[in-house]
Amino acid sequence: MPARTWFNGQPANSVPADNRGLAYGDGLFETIAVIDSRPRLLSYHLDRLTLGCQRLGIAMPADPLAPARHVMAGDGVLKLIITRGATGRGYASHDQAGADCVLQWFPDPGSLAFTPAAPVAVITCRQRLARQPALAGLKHLNRLEQVLARAEWRDPAIADGLMFDTDGLLVDGVSSNVFIVSGGHLLTPRLDQCGVAGVLRRLVIERVAPAAGFTVQEAELPAAMLDQADELFLTSSLRGILPVAAIDGRALATQQVTQRLQRQLCEMETLGHV
Amino acid sequence: MPARTWFNGQPANSVPADNRGLAYGDGLFETIAVIDSRPRLLSYHLDRLTLGCQRLGIAMPADPLAPARHVMAGDGVLKLIITRGATGRGYASHDQAGADCVLQWFPDPGSLAFTPAAPVAVITCRQRLARQPALAGLKHLNRLEQVLARAEWRDPAIADGLMFDTDGLLVDGVSSNVFIVSGGHLLTPRLDQCGVAGVLRRLVIERVAPAAGFTVQEAELPAAMLDQADELFLTSSLRGILPVAAIDGRALATQQVTQRLQRQLCEMETLGHV
Repeated sequence: MPARTWFNGQPANSVPADNRGLAYGDGLFETIAVIDSRPRLLSYHLDRLTLGCQRLGIAMPADPLAPARHVMAGDGVLKLIITRGATGRGYASHDQAGADCVLQWFPDPGSLAFTPAAPVAVITCRQRLARQPALAGLKHLNRLEQVLARAEWRDPAIADGLMFDTDGLLVDGVSSNVFIVSGGHLLTPRLDQCGVAGVLRRLVIERVAPAAGFTVQEAELPAAMLDQADELFLTSSLRGILPVAAIDGRALATQQVTQRLQRQLCEMETLGHV
Repeated sequence: MPARTWFNGQPANSVPADNRGLAYGDGLFETIAVIDSRPRLLSYHLDRLTLGCQRLGIAMPADPLAPARHVMAGDGVLKLIITRGATGRGYASHDQAGADCVLQWFPDPGSLAFTPAAPVAVITCRQRLARQPALAGLKHLNRLEQVLARAEWRDPAIADGLMFDTDGLLVDGVSSNVFIVSGGHLLTPRLDQCGVAGVLRRLVIERVAPAAGFTVQEAELPAAMLDQADELFLTSSLRGILPVAAIDGRALATQQVTQRLQRQLCEMETLGHV
């Protein structure tokens, strides 16, 4: 449970029953790591939220994290939900309706630092992702596919599940993005048909990989690419870069490039560059 | 706004901020016409809800309409939302978590009787539906595609928008199902990839069409079928059978078969058979 919740800037533990996030998943969310009272990668989170609001036609609130500003002490996680403002029953919305804003503060989540993490195991999920370019890349509230995929495992030793789209292309993890190292090249799935474009994925593409001497190619990655991968890693704005040591129990031999990227990210954070 | 709202059986105007319907659209809904205090086609609504709960792995509440039983006077609309019970942050759910239940009562909605309605105009929507067999047919809470499609028109003279999937097949209306009459045959889109399997669609297939001497074929209907259609009609559990007189301004000549089905449905309701 969150320690504090706000609805439209006011302390509240609930949202109106006619909220369109509840009715239709008509909104977006962000989950933001807070380190030493400072939201990490905030401009990237706000960029994605702004883009999402533009594409869904929702009015982006001016300063959605304001209510939490004097409450965030130490480390924690902020969850922000923006929904289209309430309307009557039915899908139609009104141009002039503002947005509704739910903000939750979860303190003391354990270590959030980008310290290099140990390799993890993943599975491949049976649940596929539908191809819907209108929603691709956004962190919107229509997440039943992820809920169904996450129900495919209970073993706490599994860090995430890899997801493929209905054409069999690799897309992302249930709650992470995925990169492949193959023949010294860095590849990540193009997210123009489905998937969430994570903020750490963006940081790796734009800054971490280049600083370590790599360029990342966004590509269509058929499932068979997994068998040819030298290395595989996940990215998550809360968990950092996670080297994958096993897929469905099959071991991946090395994490050399991945570890270089982990060290690069850690150094950037230590120097205050992220 | 609804006149009355209940959360898990208790009067309430709000739902907890950690509700999974809000967080992920992790649930289902039904919109039920109430005529003379009696929910119409209730067994069909509950059948669809039960199937949805099974497919999503949500515990179906025992008697979800109970709180409204002594409140429903005259005519109105009941909206019922069932979500997976609240969990912590993250997609994972717990087996033992019960469901949460939001019930809203909207009285005096205007005429709900299945009296034959006048022909209507529709448009074809640009927004496509993604193909996702795991969710096809269900009235789940992930409805951003419908929200985006519904934003394509404001003209109140447009009764609904026709939607196609990403392969170009006809699926349904934004808030209705669709039937085609072609060469004396009745066709409706198969809903195994996307779309909501409406309760009036089921009634027409199982009882109204047979009683009027027709069988309905569920088929893949390419967009071009619209040009060959002699008649087109929509079905909605609130609005009944709606003959379509124009698609994107192009007139459809006859509504003969449709009107026969409208009369059949009206007769069944008058005799208390639905």
